[in-house]
Amino acid sequence: MSEITAKDIQRLRKEAGVGMMDAKKALTDAGGDFDAAFALLRERGQAQVAKRADREASEGTVGSYIHVQNDRPVLGVLVELSCETDFVAKSDEFRQTADDIAMHVSWASPEWLTREDVDEEALGAEKEMIARQAAAEGKPEDVVERIVTGKIESWYAENVLYDQKFVNPERYDGTVGDMVGELAAKMGENISVRQVARVAVGA
Amino acid sequence: MSEITAKDIQRLRKEAGVGMMDAKKALTDAGGDFDAAFALLRERGQAQVAKRADREASEGTVGSYIHVQNDRPVLGVLVELSCETDFVAKSDEFRQTADDIAMHVSWASPEWLTREDVDEEALGAEKEMIARQAAAEGKPEDVVERIVTGKIESWYAENVLYDQKFVNPERYDGTVGDMVGELAAKMGENISVRQVARVAVGA
Repeated sequence: MSEITAKDIQRLRKEAGVGMMDAKKALTDAGGDFDAAFALLRERGQAQVAKRADREASEGTVGSYIHVQNDRPVLGVLVELSCETDFVAKSDEFRQTADDIAMHVSWASPEWLTREDVDEEALGAEKEMIARQAAAEGKPEDVVERIVTGKIESWYAENVLYDQKFVNPERYDGTVGDMVGELAAKMGENISVRQVARVAVGA
Repeated sequence: MSEITAKDIQRLRKEAGVGMMDAKKALTDAGGDFDAAFALLRERGQAQVAKRADREASEGTVGSYIHVQNDRPVLGVLVELSCETDFVAKSDEFRQTADDIAMHVSWASPEWLTREDVDEEALGAEKEMIARQAAAEGKPEDVVERIVTGKIESWYAENVLYDQKFVNPERYDGTVGDMVGELAAKMGENISVRQVARVAVGA
């Protein structure tokens, strides 16, 4: 049983086009072995296309959400959701997902799209702050480490789009990353959020 | 007759809330004297509010434009247009202008909002390139300088939103900066484009 690393989870999400939870579960079931986890996902029909990441994802759509207050638009969000084929890009479900994510972003205002996009400096500063606080409370070193690991997960869940819980659980109960991953598995294509823009009055 | 500088034009546009052409004309008419030019604009009713720039412009709206191709949105633009009062922010003309600018940006794709926002390095590189080309053509030094000054104006007109000719001359025949400046003069408030976001599939 080898260790399950964030790097492997990310790679599996990308190459198999699955959500974070599915990638994590497959890696756990496969005892941490990347290739075995990938094979498991394929068996389960979740990763329908091997080497999917090698195919180009140059199609897509722009989802949007405009928030109106006092009779005028005061906040707007644009989301580029990319896929591989015109067929998927035109589908209602794909376009609806793009608009849903735009609506989500208007509320959750993430700093980064995925963990890979997180600014190294910001991550380091956050880890340091958590460690300093824990140390000041007199926690021993190994406990401090575990506290940092745990609290950084919450920090990701606050600041990273793919790690945020989708704002409307009645429509989708899970993270935005899982939502995108499940759509990718269903459509059998690489699907990802490529760009997000959020413009608010006075921001 | 003192020299008319870009800095004075910018300052006049900002403090009097007028467009570039009006600012330039007033400075020319005033022999390059800033205060005299400001007074002229006030006499002409173009700069209706002295020290307008001192008032806070924290109201506004978000204009948007979504371009649909092959049955799906493939390009979106958001524009924050700011003003001083709720009254102006809610007006049809103000909101229409915000949407018009968003439509303009979808076509013209400016790099910067105003000349003040232009990246110094990009500007320097462009000037150097123009000067090198002119020198290679054997132009004397003073001519090279004039060529650089002239061609940089066209470069601004291509890359800077406020210097770009508005895309639909039937609606407004002039630059976006003039359009915003005229609206500001008409409304008697500081009005400016504060943020622009442009998201396109595959860009």
